[in-house]
Amino acid sequence: MDIALLDMAKLVGGVVVGEETVRITGFASPESAGPGDLAFLRATSKVDRLAGTRASAVVVAPEVEVAGCTLLKVEDPEAAFNRIGRKYGPKAPPVPPGIHATAVVDPSVRIHASAAVGPRAVVEAGAEIGPNTQIGALSYIGHDVRVGADCRIFPGVVVREATWIGDRVVLESGVVVGSDGFGWEAGPDGPRRIPQMGRVVLEDDVEIGANTAVDRARLDETRIGRGTKLDNLVQVGHNVKMGACNMLAAQVGLAGTVTVGNGVEMGGQVGLNGHIEIGDGAKLAAQSGIMRSVEPGAMMFGSPAHPARVRKRLILLEPEIPELFKRVKKLEEKVARFEESADD
Amino acid sequence: MDIALLDMAKLVGGVVVGEETVRITGFASPESAGPGDLAFLRATSKVDRLAGTRASAVVVAPEVEVAGCTLLKVEDPEAAFNRIGRKYGPKAPPVPPGIHATAVVDPSVRIHASAAVGPRAVVEAGAEIGPNTQIGALSYIGHDVRVGADCRIFPGVVVREATWIGDRVVLESGVVVGSDGFGWEAGPDGPRRIPQMGRVVLEDDVEIGANTAVDRARLDETRIGRGTKLDNLVQVGHNVKMGACNMLAAQVGLAGTVTVGNGVEMGGQVGLNGHIEIGDGAKLAAQSGIMRSVEPGAMMFGSPAHPARVRKRLILLEPEIPELFKRVKKLEEKVARFEESADD
Amino acid sequence: MDIALLDMAKLVGGVVVGEETVRITGFASPESAGPGDLAFLRATSKVDRLAGTRASAVVVAPEVEVAGCTLLKVEDPEAAFNRIGRKYGPKAPPVPPGIHATAVVDPSVRIHASAAVGPRAVVEAGAEIGPNTQIGALSYIGHDVRVGADCRIFPGVVVREATWIGDRVVLESGVVVGSDGFGWEAGPDGPRRIPQMGRVVLEDDVEIGANTAVDRARLDETRIGRGTKLDNLVQVGHNVKMGACNMLAAQVGLAGTVTVGNGVEMGGQVGLNGHIEIGDGAKLAAQSGIMRSVEPGAMMFGSPAHPARVRKRLILLEPEIPELFKRVKKLEEKVARFEESADD
Repeated sequence: MDIALLDMAKLVGGVVVGEETVRITGFASPESAGPGDLAFLRATSKVDRLAGTRASAVVVAPEVEVAGCTLLKVEDPEAAFNRIGRKYGPKAPPVPPGIHATAVVDPSVRIHASAAVGPRAVVEAGAEIGPNTQIGALSYIGHDVRVGADCRIFPGVVVREATWIGDRVVLESGVVVGSDGFGWEAGPDGPRRIPQMGRVVLEDDVEIGANTAVDRARLDETRIGRGTKLDNLVQVGHNVKMGACNMLAAQVGLAGTVTVGNGVEMGGQVGLNGHIEIGDGAKLAAQSGIMRSVEPGAMMFGSPAHPARVRKRLILLEPEIPELFKRVKKLEEKVARFEESADD
Repeated sequence: MDIALLDMAKLVGGVVVGEETVRITGFASPESAGPGDLAFLRATSKVDRLAGTRASAVVVAPEVEVAGCTLLKVEDPEAAFNRIGRKYGPKAPPVPPGIHATAVVDPSVRIHASAAVGPRAVVEAGAEIGPNTQIGALSYIGHDVRVGADCRIFPGVVVREATWIGDRVVLESGVVVGSDGFGWEAGPDGPRRIPQMGRVVLEDDVEIGANTAVDRARLDETRIGRGTKLDNLVQVGHNVKMGACNMLAAQVGLAGTVTVGNGVEMGGQVGLNGHIEIGDGAKLAAQSGIMRSVEPGAMMFGSPAHPARVRKRLILLEPEIPELFKRVKKLEEKVARFEESADD
Repeated sequence: MDIALLDMAKLVGGVVVGEETVRITGFASPESAGPGDLAFLRATSKVDRLAGTRASAVVVAPEVEVAGCTLLKVEDPEAAFNRIGRKYGPKAPPVPPGIHATAVVDPSVRIHASAAVGPRAVVEAGAEIGPNTQIGALSYIGHDVRVGADCRIFPGVVVREATWIGDRVVLESGVVVGSDGFGWEAGPDGPRRIPQMGRVVLEDDVEIGANTAVDRARLDETRIGRGTKLDNLVQVGHNVKMGACNMLAAQVGLAGTVTVGNGVEMGGQVGLNGHIEIGDGAKLAAQSGIMRSVEPGAMMFGSPAHPARVRKRLILLEPEIPELFKRVKKLEEKVARFEESADD
């Protein structure tokens, strides 16, 4: 990578102040940047971060002035930096086009000429792989799986049979999609799995983090809606239905048959009870335990979860509880003395 | 799949009311079913769910009457539906019999003629694979591992050396069995792993969910008893001993040397402290933090866990705590006024 | 394995009391040991554990006396047992030297002659593998990854592009290093990933448990310091910086941009909020929710976390809260009677 700063300025509609001929060869924070690096400053109030930076240029807001530092001035420095990074920055190396000689792809697979299957990947009978989709090394695509266009499946992913995947879906390494749901019935020799006969559907623009597991449905579908993003190590139980553009942080766990609306945010390690509904735009704070359905727009916090306002008040009072016990004891003593004197 | 409804009725001892010639080609819920699908109705009180269903037939209790809908009447509709699904429904496609040409199987491996090893799987020296067992694609079976009969190891599983696996064991994708336990001692240059010289034993009918990890013992065994079922992303520390027919929901974590009896149920995200015992039939509610041993049959809830009855009362009172502070303050003011007037 | 007990005694500077010609063929606990096994007794007070042991010898403290049992007496029995186990005990079978015929290693990879790459492993262009390092079967080493000397990468690991790994690093099966961080910005069609352009650096002697995920940095580095140990199923968010010799138990989750000092201990399932700092030597109890920065040496407990002393007092008082409500009610009634009589 070796790009003229002026080309970057052009991309984002910014103005270069300082050395106009600078060329950029990397991206870094102001503090760790070296020659050739582009950095950015989100908050103008933190302009001190640029003192002594060795970055070749810094993307800043128009009002920032720093002596001895080439600046790329633009209205929204962070958005501009991201846009530059997206166009010019390092990317995960693509899977080489075509089917790698060491991949095992069943002859019945319908795979677009522009798709790529990496070394040691396995694609089973009846699968379909769309245009420009990349299947990483050592990944497994099961029977009759459909993968749309422009997807990126990183190395070491398992997609079990009959899963449907839309366009522009990203599955990070270690993801398992379509494992059997955790449903059991009593059998003569102990619990016996209830047949899990449904599938998983991942709509367009879903992205799923490393080592996350999404179970297939008992019947019908487990569905993750358009643009929803899951972080690492998340558990999605069978028959979960999620709408669009939800954000689930790492290690969240959804029990079976949870329904989630659109635009919901869940912090890390949140747990959701089965068979409940989370309304559009709800926010569930990290580590919350959600036992009942949540109204649209509600902010929930704690285990068990209360509205954030209630929970915050409880948290503030909590350290005063030992003192409260003492205060009550003192009151009891005083009242006892009144009673004695009244008896006199 | 294309089965006469009458054959299904025969299988479960049921009676067809309506169109007796119906053939079934799939399974679905009443709401999403289309022509050819079989649905079921668990609760007779929810018979409204069948209004407008396009299912070709519905498994119902004997007392249910629905006009214009072919019914398969049987005493326990859910059990019957599961039984039909188990016999006729879609199953994970089997690994083709024999050793796939691209599998790497050490010549010393003793593998039954009826077993199957999928593409790109690796089976190391000294391993034994029993009858009808299926080793999925891209799975790894380490040195001297013993796998019994009728097991299903899905793609992308790692079973480390010296593990013993019984019959009818199921390991979902991403499971790791036999990783080194988390035990450390002080060394000259920082912590040093205590040798983890034991093994993992999975008894008959154990089933383990996607991306769950089971550590080998420091000495002797980590043992998961007959018929115990683990959901996804569960952590089983070294030297854990579990009895029969326990049910552990997703993201449960057991620290080292926990002993679990039989028939124990753990909700999602429960955490267990090391070196404790959980008695037979105990129930640990989701997200509970179990710091001490639990008596047989106890129901525990919360972090730290209390008996469920105690915890539920605390949960009910919790939102009233801010008001309690106010009430005590008011009492203090009143008592102070009494004291003043008494002093007069 | 078949080693003279006297050789073991020599290794640890101990004395054999009893049958000096004993040979050891395995390691076990006193209770499960059989002929040929070496056991150890940590606490002299538990000498009853040796009654009836079938171990061929037991490592004990000098003051222990047991009739009919060969003893290896040494000052620190546990440390001696570990040392013997480390030298003579079972080890994970090594990856056979060289590059396995079924591995896919790009011609540009610089791999030391003493390193080993197992069956079905994939090593991408530009990677470097140091002396004596073992890459397990079915593992993936991405483009431009650097792995130092004496590392052990177990089967089924994914190391994404540009990661730097020091010497003596151990990655257990299912580990994912270098997955994309969970950072998003608003886009025209929903959230869009902020480019994650940094890398992961694992310093010397880092060891990481099964199915743990470590995200690459948005910029610069996610760094795990020398000698830090992570258990299974841990989540390390982007831009996390950890110092030396920290211990993180299973299922801990660190949100992005957390800074951890040295010698910090975290119990299982602890969750850390983003952008906070944990001081040297802090101890975070299991399941704690760490919302704010923690001072060096502090012990924190609970969700949200309080200093352990405060939290323990709250936990002790918690079951008395229902009674407190009753006591306040009684006080209110008494005070109301006083008020009535005062009005008379």
